[in-house]
Amino acid sequence: MTSRERVAIIGAGPSGMAQLRAFESAARAGAEIPDLVCFEKQADWGGQWNFTWRTGLDEFGEPVHSSMYRNLWSNGPKEALEFADYSFDEHFGRPISSYPPRPVLWDYIAGRLEKSDVRQLIRFQTVVRWIEFDDERQVFTLTSEDLPTGQSKVEEFDRVIISSGHFSFPNVPDFPGIETFPGYISHAHDFRGAEAFEDKDVLVIGASYSAEDIGSQAFKMGARSVTASFRSAPMGYAWPEGIEERPVVERFDGSTAYFADGTSKHVDAVILCTGYLHKYPFLPDDLALSSPNNVYPDGLYRGVVWQGNPRLTYLGAQDQWFTFNMFDAQAWYVRDLILGRLALPDEQERAASITEWRTRFGQIDSAAAEIRFQADYIRDLLDLTDYPEFDIDRVVEIFLAWKRDKKDDIMGYRDRIYESVMTGTIAIVHHTPWLEELDDSLERYLDVDPDAVEPARSIGDVPRDDDREVLATA
Amino acid sequence: MTSRERVAIIGAGPSGMAQLRAFESAARAGAEIPDLVCFEKQADWGGQWNFTWRTGLDEFGEPVHSSMYRNLWSNGPKEALEFADYSFDEHFGRPISSYPPRPVLWDYIAGRLEKSDVRQLIRFQTVVRWIEFDDERQVFTLTSEDLPTGQSKVEEFDRVIISSGHFSFPNVPDFPGIETFPGYISHAHDFRGAEAFEDKDVLVIGASYSAEDIGSQAFKMGARSVTASFRSAPMGYAWPEGIEERPVVERFDGSTAYFADGTSKHVDAVILCTGYLHKYPFLPDDLALSSPNNVYPDGLYRGVVWQGNPRLTYLGAQDQWFTFNMFDAQAWYVRDLILGRLALPDEQERAASITEWRTRFGQIDSAAAEIRFQADYIRDLLDLTDYPEFDIDRVVEIFLAWKRDKKDDIMGYRDRIYESVMTGTIAIVHHTPWLEELDDSLERYLDVDPDAVEPARSIGDVPRDDDREVLATA
Repeated sequence: MTSRERVAIIGAGPSGMAQLRAFESAARAGAEIPDLVCFEKQADWGGQWNFTWRTGLDEFGEPVHSSMYRNLWSNGPKEALEFADYSFDEHFGRPISSYPPRPVLWDYIAGRLEKSDVRQLIRFQTVVRWIEFDDERQVFTLTSEDLPTGQSKVEEFDRVIISSGHFSFPNVPDFPGIETFPGYISHAHDFRGAEAFEDKDVLVIGASYSAEDIGSQAFKMGARSVTASFRSAPMGYAWPEGIEERPVVERFDGSTAYFADGTSKHVDAVILCTGYLHKYPFLPDDLALSSPNNVYPDGLYRGVVWQGNPRLTYLGAQDQWFTFNMFDAQAWYVRDLILGRLALPDEQERAASITEWRTRFGQIDSAAAEIRFQADYIRDLLDLTDYPEFDIDRVVEIFLAWKRDKKDDIMGYRDRIYESVMTGTIAIVHHTPWLEELDDSLERYLDVDPDAVEPARSIGDVPRDDDREVLATA
Repeated sequence: MTSRERVAIIGAGPSGMAQLRAFESAARAGAEIPDLVCFEKQADWGGQWNFTWRTGLDEFGEPVHSSMYRNLWSNGPKEALEFADYSFDEHFGRPISSYPPRPVLWDYIAGRLEKSDVRQLIRFQTVVRWIEFDDERQVFTLTSEDLPTGQSKVEEFDRVIISSGHFSFPNVPDFPGIETFPGYISHAHDFRGAEAFEDKDVLVIGASYSAEDIGSQAFKMGARSVTASFRSAPMGYAWPEGIEERPVVERFDGSTAYFADGTSKHVDAVILCTGYLHKYPFLPDDLALSSPNNVYPDGLYRGVVWQGNPRLTYLGAQDQWFTFNMFDAQAWYVRDLILGRLALPDEQERAASITEWRTRFGQIDSAAAEIRFQADYIRDLLDLTDYPEFDIDRVVEIFLAWKRDKKDDIMGYRDRIYESVMTGTIAIVHHTPWLEELDDSLERYLDVDPDAVEPARSIGDVPRDDDREVLATA
């Protein structure tokens, strides 16, 4: 870096926060870092993990970012996403369970940044409206709007890092007859809690994480029935009575859904768990990633550098087994490219690398192979930077055990525990099984004697099972 | 107009369609008209009147434009919104009732344009991303995106006409406790039908048209109770048993709403009828209108010309008593400014006019005065162009009668009939009273023998009242 560059980071969710942390850790070690401006549409950081009750458009008429809902608990073990430079032990000061609810994870990712003053680099409630690149001058012109005042601002940046995520713009297919379906309809993006599904017949359309978890939430909250409809293959879990899978919905007539196998069912609520769009409304088409959701989108060298313009990078643009620590691996790499610690290969070499990885990607034939592929991808990045080393193969094993646990017991897998790859700490069994816990607050989660407190909101009257089995899979 | 100017029209709803009609009628009369490009985000024209089942974000991740719902019928007599150059008689070939449902009005406004080939001037499924003005060259640079392909396009225009409306971006206030309200929550913008409110306790927050009509829809569809909560004053209609008004909601606790008068109520569904934002995300702040919703927003000369840059105009940016024919009056005026048939006064004179009208606006002390104010505003425009003359005072009388009708019978006013100001035709009494009609389709509406057909969708089992009173207010 010859002079103090200006770098724009778009989004202060887990990826953008990782990028801030990466630069901050270099600065802490004495490096000169660029002039950073992080633009965040919401009033706080955390991206997806920053829950809002709002749906559709927010208080400023901007698309709501977060797809979170009440009672969302991590659907993968925290041991698979732990930061190598900031352990759960360091944050909480004691062991916690392996599947924490949303507020706990939010607290964890925020806690890492609260150790420093990077928050001041973030312009909250500021939306990026449009970015243009001037080929001659090799600078980006970025137009943003301060949402509370409506004031627009035009600035120049030498680099742009896109960390706005790709689980915020719902993919919403059409269905014949849905326009007169009289009940509740929403995409998973706008789903905020299943409490109202008590005694209702619920249809989730899709067969991935959203369908799996929202279907389970509906069951947990006392839905009369949960039907999950798949396009290609069923999820195939050993569902409890009350949850079933059927092939794709072909049409609706009133409140009756008709499935591809000729069956039909009355449903009160439809949740479209039909995935998300890569969407970057602030970017012209020659800068905007357009890809299906997969683990190696085309056009990104080492999964981050935009091949069409290497001054532009993307964090977390892949489909994700690994999450927080993968974002770190990417952020540290992007940081070192910008700091000039690493050289960027020329266009041809980058293209060859993309082709090589895309070829390997095309050969993936199982979930396990995909997890290993992503582990290899991360290892490749980690070898280049000073991000603390960790045993990625061990994380792969955790993912595989997790998948087995889900097959064993889809309603109980969150009660199992793992050993931290970073610290060796074995997670504790949580005070309340997931299926029985109706309070997802940080306070309730961290309470060592939960029987002494009343849950903040008690919905339903599920008996406590104090004899629950402890299932350590480590 | 010295050379063939390029004019961008943003939005093909009622205002944009009026602008296309205005130019087309000049062209029909032999005038040379500018090069027009109308940008429309949706796949069809009609704006608000183009119903979609979608909420929040559409199939391309763009904010859904329309706030329409199933079973929405005009809440004002069609005789108050009739085009002076295209009567209901001309479109339907026979008298119809005074309060048609949405598909009928959509058919009417589309029918006027289908007489010509202006549809080819509209780029559907194309969103305007960003507009900039070059002071030196006096041109706008407009960046748009073709949504199906994602392709961006940059073009220059000499003029921009904003006709994207201001009832599309919801104003959504926050309420303590709403983040854990377990039932259905939506803003009126995302409300699509009240069928699911049968036997439910419904809360509408607000005291304007949305609250009035969505509350009435819930009642019509069999809600157990409808509570409307007002901030400043109740609507004050003679509500039937089952609808009541209470002061503002101060907080929620679980599914209980607490009101400012100390009362509380269990509610299953909350619809925020809290208005809309003037929002133009594609405009920098020096071009974007920012105003409360009123009948004379500041900064618009003659209610349309942007004082900060008269190459930019807004249609339908005021709060509206008059609608379609007001948009026409504006569109004809804007057309004649662009064609050079009318001279635009200088900045000072325009400022004086704005001040004069804003002063009069500040003196409005009643709904009747506001209706007369808007009539005067329209008359001022009509006097300048060749838009067919019509008796605006007569329309004012219709509005006042309509208000009396609503006070008399809030659930029955839509069964009354009026005389057309344009043609003298007296509307017919519709075959089914509004409160009993559960099929809002064009086919059902136009059917002369509705008893011979089965409603397409029959919800509930409301008995027909064949002895209904005919209430002509003309």
